[in-house]
Amino acid sequence: MLQNIKAIAFDADDTLWVNEPFFRNAEKEFCELMVDYLDEEQCNRLLFEVEMQNLPLYGYGIKPFTLSLIEAAIRFSDGKVPISVINTLIERGKKMLQEPVEVLDGIEDTLKRLNGNYRLIMATKGDLLDQQRKLIKSGLEPYFHHIEIVSDKTEAQYSKLVKHLDVTPEEFLMVGNSVKSDILPVLNIGAHAFHIPFHTTWEHEVVKEPVEHLNFRLLDSATEMLEHLGVV
Amino acid sequence: MLQNIKAIAFDADDTLWVNEPFFRNAEKEFCELMVDYLDEEQCNRLLFEVEMQNLPLYGYGIKPFTLSLIEAAIRFSDGKVPISVINTLIERGKKMLQEPVEVLDGIEDTLKRLNGNYRLIMATKGDLLDQQRKLIKSGLEPYFHHIEIVSDKTEAQYSKLVKHLDVTPEEFLMVGNSVKSDILPVLNIGAHAFHIPFHTTWEHEVVKEPVEHLNFRLLDSATEMLEHLGVV
Repeated sequence: MLQNIKAIAFDADDTLWVNEPFFRNAEKEFCELMVDYLDEEQCNRLLFEVEMQNLPLYGYGIKPFTLSLIEAAIRFSDGKVPISVINTLIERGKKMLQEPVEVLDGIEDTLKRLNGNYRLIMATKGDLLDQQRKLIKSGLEPYFHHIEIVSDKTEAQYSKLVKHLDVTPEEFLMVGNSVKSDILPVLNIGAHAFHIPFHTTWEHEVVKEPVEHLNFRLLDSATEMLEHLGVV
Repeated sequence: MLQNIKAIAFDADDTLWVNEPFFRNAEKEFCELMVDYLDEEQCNRLLFEVEMQNLPLYGYGIKPFTLSLIEAAIRFSDGKVPISVINTLIERGKKMLQEPVEVLDGIEDTLKRLNGNYRLIMATKGDLLDQQRKLIKSGLEPYFHHIEIVSDKTEAQYSKLVKHLDVTPEEFLMVGNSVKSDILPVLNIGAHAFHIPFHTTWEHEVVKEPVEHLNFRLLDSATEMLEHLGVV
């Protein structure tokens, strides 16, 4: 059982609520619009390349994604894509920014029971306005002390976060669906990490090797956290 | 002389470094690209409308601005704009994200002398990745305790910020170039505000009435802060 934890940070997208499937759907629709220029497999692969090229400059989220889709449409069609497609992509991005928020199983009940025993933080690399909107729509806002936005989930950023929360790494627990972003850098700074996998993972976040570490737990659902923390 | 101040938050764009002129230039170039469809006055006015419509959904910054330019180009031309113009707008946005950072007069010296006496924060409603990039490029990073990103600069957001900094409103001073964003909401929560005007102000931020308030000072430059705070 994990004792001495004071602050628990939750990743947001695909940990608290559904997110990745919206991107996968948007990519599928995009590649259907590109069918005159390249096949789906090529389209997905080259789109990922455009996104990776833009990541250092644009960062994460729906607005960077929309800009990458527009750039990809122009590039893939060699400038021949009709302007109506660009308009569709702009509208598609706006629609994504307004999607309903579907909270994952067990999350609300778990947060309710952790609240009061721990300082609960939402830690995300998405963009603040969009994550705030989702937090409010989700109804989960009352359980969180505040939102921490990080530009990337690296060891340096987690060290900063822990320092900012005024706890030691041993008193900090991160909960998330991405081994690359939510687990490995956290374990590397001496803090604790719980992994709750989500059925869909963005290629950029995929890590193939299983994690083995004293400070690590792999969970099937959020409610299992309560057991590991001894909250009954 | 202002005593008892513990935390000082600085707005970033057009307070620490030049920003607004990059947007004004981009708008000018955009309206030149639109010259076949509408005149400059119309273009500026309608572009502002598009930006205001998108603000609640997109928030502030270069990526929202780029998406609004693309939308405006399609709308103003009734879908007739060549795809090469859209490409130019994408490239223009990327260029803006990589502009050099020009620190304003007196800022570095002032921060150097305040540092150690106060907790210095950068408080901005831009997007985190872009503001971090500018902070690092500016060389001002060592003077700041951390960056606070707010989705909008309202009284509620400032109250949250003050609470988060663990100071009272009377112990908090905000410094910025926008009366609407950096001054009025801060005075309304009982905190202190210094206004350092910048020569160019975005229409959305313009407030016509002069401010009169016990907790308010209008300064010609950042170095005047030192006098008002009794830092010698």
